[in-house]
Amino acid sequence: MQFKFTKMHGLGNDFIVIDAINQSISLTRENIRFLADRHFGVGCDQVLIVEKASSNADFRYRIFNADGSEVEQCGNGARCFVRFVHDHGLSKKKEICIETASGLIFPKLESNLDVTVNMGIPRFNPSDIPFIADKRSSIYLLDINGEQMEISAVSMGNPHAVMIVPSIEDASVGTMGAQIESHPRFPQRVNAGFMQIIDRHHIKLRVYERGAGETFACGTGACAAVVCGIERGLLASDVTVSTRGGDLRIQWNGEKQPVLMTGPATTVFEGTIGLPSGEHTSTSL
Amino acid sequence: MQFKFTKMHGLGNDFIVIDAINQSISLTRENIRFLADRHFGVGCDQVLIVEKASSNADFRYRIFNADGSEVEQCGNGARCFVRFVHDHGLSKKKEICIETASGLIFPKLESNLDVTVNMGIPRFNPSDIPFIADKRSSIYLLDINGEQMEISAVSMGNPHAVMIVPSIEDASVGTMGAQIESHPRFPQRVNAGFMQIIDRHHIKLRVYERGAGETFACGTGACAAVVCGIERGLLASDVTVSTRGGDLRIQWNGEKQPVLMTGPATTVFEGTIGLPSGEHTSTSL
Repeated sequence: MQFKFTKMHGLGNDFIVIDAINQSISLTRENIRFLADRHFGVGCDQVLIVEKASSNADFRYRIFNADGSEVEQCGNGARCFVRFVHDHGLSKKKEICIETASGLIFPKLESNLDVTVNMGIPRFNPSDIPFIADKRSSIYLLDINGEQMEISAVSMGNPHAVMIVPSIEDASVGTMGAQIESHPRFPQRVNAGFMQIIDRHHIKLRVYERGAGETFACGTGACAAVVCGIERGLLASDVTVSTRGGDLRIQWNGEKQPVLMTGPATTVFEGTIGLPSGEHTSTSL
Repeated sequence: MQFKFTKMHGLGNDFIVIDAINQSISLTRENIRFLADRHFGVGCDQVLIVEKASSNADFRYRIFNADGSEVEQCGNGARCFVRFVHDHGLSKKKEICIETASGLIFPKLESNLDVTVNMGIPRFNPSDIPFIADKRSSIYLLDINGEQMEISAVSMGNPHAVMIVPSIEDASVGTMGAQIESHPRFPQRVNAGFMQIIDRHHIKLRVYERGAGETFACGTGACAAVVCGIERGLLASDVTVSTRGGDLRIQWNGEKQPVLMTGPATTVFEGTIGLPSGEHTSTSL
């Protein structure tokens, strides 16, 4: 089986995007693992398959992690998806209705070719995060090594703790991120964001992702930091979030409103690959 | 500037190979770094440029590390080079004369499409390795944390220490490799190989590479392990070396003879990339 693919990234979160509408594609879990392998295959964080919608949506997409497991949604992936169908002439619409494993989404191509994605409504109730606390607050004190650290907490579909730091360069994201991630008050663990406030419309952000460590750019982490900053009265929509991978723009109109995230999607190269029957990644000796 | 490239690997040591004979290519150090970046670019250990020879050789090749610096030679790269010029119809010869930054090499395409590379003559004199020892021996005792460990030592153009272990799976390659690498008796540090002898013609090998940690397959490390095993009377040419990345076959006819290494070179995919003027890898915040 030989097919074409496109390598893309959204702020360093990278994807292999495959058109399964104009190509007949059937990938096994082993094939996905091979494609995602950075030494023996193409290499990516996730594989994104573009398919025909089964409903009235314009497209259906499926996202697979590097280990071959299917995931529900991904803000960076949705941005790359929209650029892909635009650049490859699969759709001329600016706002595209996509069927995903977790429902319909409506990402929108902006005039500068950035893409805006609706990231859902933030939830602040401790039990929704989940976070162990008596009642909802915009600031909590978290005991870390006997020290009381001020954090905010929110769910963007996944749990986030956000801490304000004086300097993002000096923040000990690795060690403190790991301690917050596995803090007993977050029973399903948590993503830990460290934000430096530049002004009411601009922050710098580093995120220690649950189970993954520090990444280039965490979309839900950017949303979480901004809504927590707005809740505390320190930020006002819209807010530019500078990450290691580049900038995102976050809009939020307050309680019960969805968060809109706008950012770039970049095409790196076009490729053609044949899947050998006996492909392998590294062998265990 | 848009150009075609081929992604290849030799036992997991991966390369971007670019034909600069039939394409007009001029890459800056920044371009190389971008291409090698595994999230923002294509991703590889090294970039290999195929050029016209300036002498009577068939080709010239240049190899660049991911940081943009030029390196002299590389056994895995030479294998990929030969498969590339064969598969792309640039030469029909089986034995190809290549001009490299360190002189001419003559890799040979075998009938099964594996490639044999002359890896040079091993040097055992301690001062040539360099290794601090009174006189040449096939076994030395190295003090590690107060324990006397048996090692062999050889130069394959770069220094190697080789230790026999009962089981490669249980060898503490990370911790002991780091201790051997920086042992004061190796003034230029050393690559540390851990070999399990299966029989006189088959070993399993893991290598802690100087400055890089454990890798999938170290070509010079495989040569070093085999010549040290032959010197100690435990192995006989030729020897199959099983690494995490796959198998190599090593031939050596003894003192003052060159070591021949035979192994596979695999094409993963063909790609086309445009280099934007403002490409970047990750930004520092």
